[in-house]
Amino acid sequence: MAVGNVSVPDVIYPIDGIKLSATAAGVRYKDRDDLVVIEISDKATTAVVTTKNTFCAAPVRVLREHFAKVSPRYLVTNTGNANAGTGADGKRRAIDICTALAEKAGVDTNAILPFSTGVIGEPLNSDAVIAGLDNALANLASDSWLAAANGIRTTDTIPKLASQKIDVAGTSYHVTGMSKGSGMIRPNMATMLGYVATDANIAADLLQEMLSAINEQSFNRITVDGDTSTNDCCVLIATGAASSEVIDSPEHPHYQPVFDALVDVFVRLAQLIVRDGEGATKFMTVKVTGGQTTQECCDVAYAVAHSPLVKTAFFASDANWGRILAAVGYAGIENLDTEQVDVYLDEVMICQNGGVAPDYTEEAGKTVMSRPEITIHIDLARGDASDTVYTCDLSYDYVKINADYRS
Amino acid sequence: MAVGNVSVPDVIYPIDGIKLSATAAGVRYKDRDDLVVIEISDKATTAVVTTKNTFCAAPVRVLREHFAKVSPRYLVTNTGNANAGTGADGKRRAIDICTALAEKAGVDTNAILPFSTGVIGEPLNSDAVIAGLDNALANLASDSWLAAANGIRTTDTIPKLASQKIDVAGTSYHVTGMSKGSGMIRPNMATMLGYVATDANIAADLLQEMLSAINEQSFNRITVDGDTSTNDCCVLIATGAASSEVIDSPEHPHYQPVFDALVDVFVRLAQLIVRDGEGATKFMTVKVTGGQTTQECCDVAYAVAHSPLVKTAFFASDANWGRILAAVGYAGIENLDTEQVDVYLDEVMICQNGGVAPDYTEEAGKTVMSRPEITIHIDLARGDASDTVYTCDLSYDYVKINADYRS
Repeated sequence: MAVGNVSVPDVIYPIDGIKLSATAAGVRYKDRDDLVVIEISDKATTAVVTTKNTFCAAPVRVLREHFAKVSPRYLVTNTGNANAGTGADGKRRAIDICTALAEKAGVDTNAILPFSTGVIGEPLNSDAVIAGLDNALANLASDSWLAAANGIRTTDTIPKLASQKIDVAGTSYHVTGMSKGSGMIRPNMATMLGYVATDANIAADLLQEMLSAINEQSFNRITVDGDTSTNDCCVLIATGAASSEVIDSPEHPHYQPVFDALVDVFVRLAQLIVRDGEGATKFMTVKVTGGQTTQECCDVAYAVAHSPLVKTAFFASDANWGRILAAVGYAGIENLDTEQVDVYLDEVMICQNGGVAPDYTEEAGKTVMSRPEITIHIDLARGDASDTVYTCDLSYDYVKINADYRS
Repeated sequence: MAVGNVSVPDVIYPIDGIKLSATAAGVRYKDRDDLVVIEISDKATTAVVTTKNTFCAAPVRVLREHFAKVSPRYLVTNTGNANAGTGADGKRRAIDICTALAEKAGVDTNAILPFSTGVIGEPLNSDAVIAGLDNALANLASDSWLAAANGIRTTDTIPKLASQKIDVAGTSYHVTGMSKGSGMIRPNMATMLGYVATDANIAADLLQEMLSAINEQSFNRITVDGDTSTNDCCVLIATGAASSEVIDSPEHPHYQPVFDALVDVFVRLAQLIVRDGEGATKFMTVKVTGGQTTQECCDVAYAVAHSPLVKTAFFASDANWGRILAAVGYAGIENLDTEQVDVYLDEVMICQNGGVAPDYTEEAGKTVMSRPEITIHIDLARGDASDTVYTCDLSYDYVKINADYRS
């Protein structure tokens, strides 16, 4: 039961230079697509960011090594098994998959980047993945984004897609992306899995800088349960098919519109993960203003976004703003003058100067809390910095989903 | 449904120099004790630690000011309302209560320390508290620890008491204490509320040092939901009634046995809070060894203890050790060699060198996970430091308790 508008875009623009396929390889479950291959044209540039979890998965270790050597040509993703906590054997299996795909596709093994998502700590059925590669290659097509977005789902209840077209001085650029993730979501450099492609022509170094910057406004600002995954990865591909005009610096006239379009797609994909957060019934935007630094705004926003007491109060539609104050109070902000702090739920001021707002009524609180999408705005009133984090509530179903079966 | 042995001690030793009473003052609910007064003899020394939450409650601010001036003679605690997030009006009400009690008891207002626990952000009915003080004073008795422990309960399902007697070189010392707390538990210097008294004769400065040190092994090592309360306070009183022998340094021959007895009582009281954690069905000890520093052991232990995915897996009795590894991986430990990390559940090694242990079986995992009390032992294998944190699982009932009503 995802929150708000989570529908598949009416138009999903294919990206010239990108082909995708989704195949049922039987990695863990039968008869569901669990193997997604993405083919990247040899002219494209690609940027990657990966999890900061020290216990990162075997495929993450392999892809870091491969990505350091050559520009990727194929991304191969399996669901059903994260190939994490699997030691040397897990790494060998990830490499086996890359080697097999490289042979079949006739490219360097280093040009293959592997991704896995699913249960941690069990051996990946790499034989099943390898057996599925022929089908995967045979079915590659540029219009298979929806099939691929479905193929990378685990506990996700919806496919997560975003697509945009912009025109810049006579050139049409397209951006299309997909993401997956629903639990174990507190990305640290990237989400569970995100793949975005554009046909813009962007220099590789600049593309990496853009991906890092865009992540800080999108995947790195969402949390469902505060659990940073072992497998977080995000890939941004620029195929260059739309124009021979190379965007090579932030001063290039095409840079800003393309950057903005990418931000739109990334933020949409990141928000889709929260909207589909395990058990989510509410989508919350936690906006902190008036901070001395971006970091302290983030610290406050995450303290509120992670507080089980805040999250259960939102699940109950209870404007229990004392729990928000308590979370602000333990966010570790030095010398915070609590008597300057204001808190709003959407347009309703609930807390002024650290106490209940004079005009606040329980009725106004109830009205705003009944909405499925709510902005919690905390004004620290001590500086000009601000930041925003997206999260969801904590419901019975979160416990049910994570207690009932091993994901 | 508290976990394990949570019964009231067979013998609760009165502490000579301490009298207590519990009164139904009607602060929030009718006909339940919600006002607890503790009288301290004028010869006692007292130590106090309070929450590090910036949004600390009005009574906490008042008691810090009072405690800085004179040694306390009365502790006055109300339940039903935390008097937090209540601004200047809240502080005035806390002072009003102290002033009223001081007049009735004939002591300095600064000798009164106020404590409140309950809902945040609503005005405290200080008139009700003040109206109850005559009864509270009239009923003071040295054998009312159980009544007082019941009187400070909010969502607690059990009274929390611990009591010990030790003999040191012919002198009998007694230690008796009580605590309360069940949700919003991740104490930072103290728990929701804890009061411990001994009849040992301990110099005031040393008592404060002892309290700080003991807290680091007890109340500062527990977490239910990671939410640090606005009202955490812990008080340690030494009445000196047992002996004229003043314990004035760690070298004093009576110091260590008294210290150890205090630790026993504090750890018991802290664990009782976790055992009675909101919705708890399992009591988990997270023990981290082989760290380079105590801090990194704590960081790892808290990451595991706070992970909603770990907590729900324990609720489900699912040995989903991958979630433990993931939490270790995002604890922020620099240069952690994950291929050295071992993890045990009680006596069962589940993870060796960062992967599944060769001899581990799902059956062994199931057996250990079915226990109501489980030790998660994580060996980082990179140093000699160790530390331990106590926590509980995350169940449907946690969500129910915190979503169903405003606490």
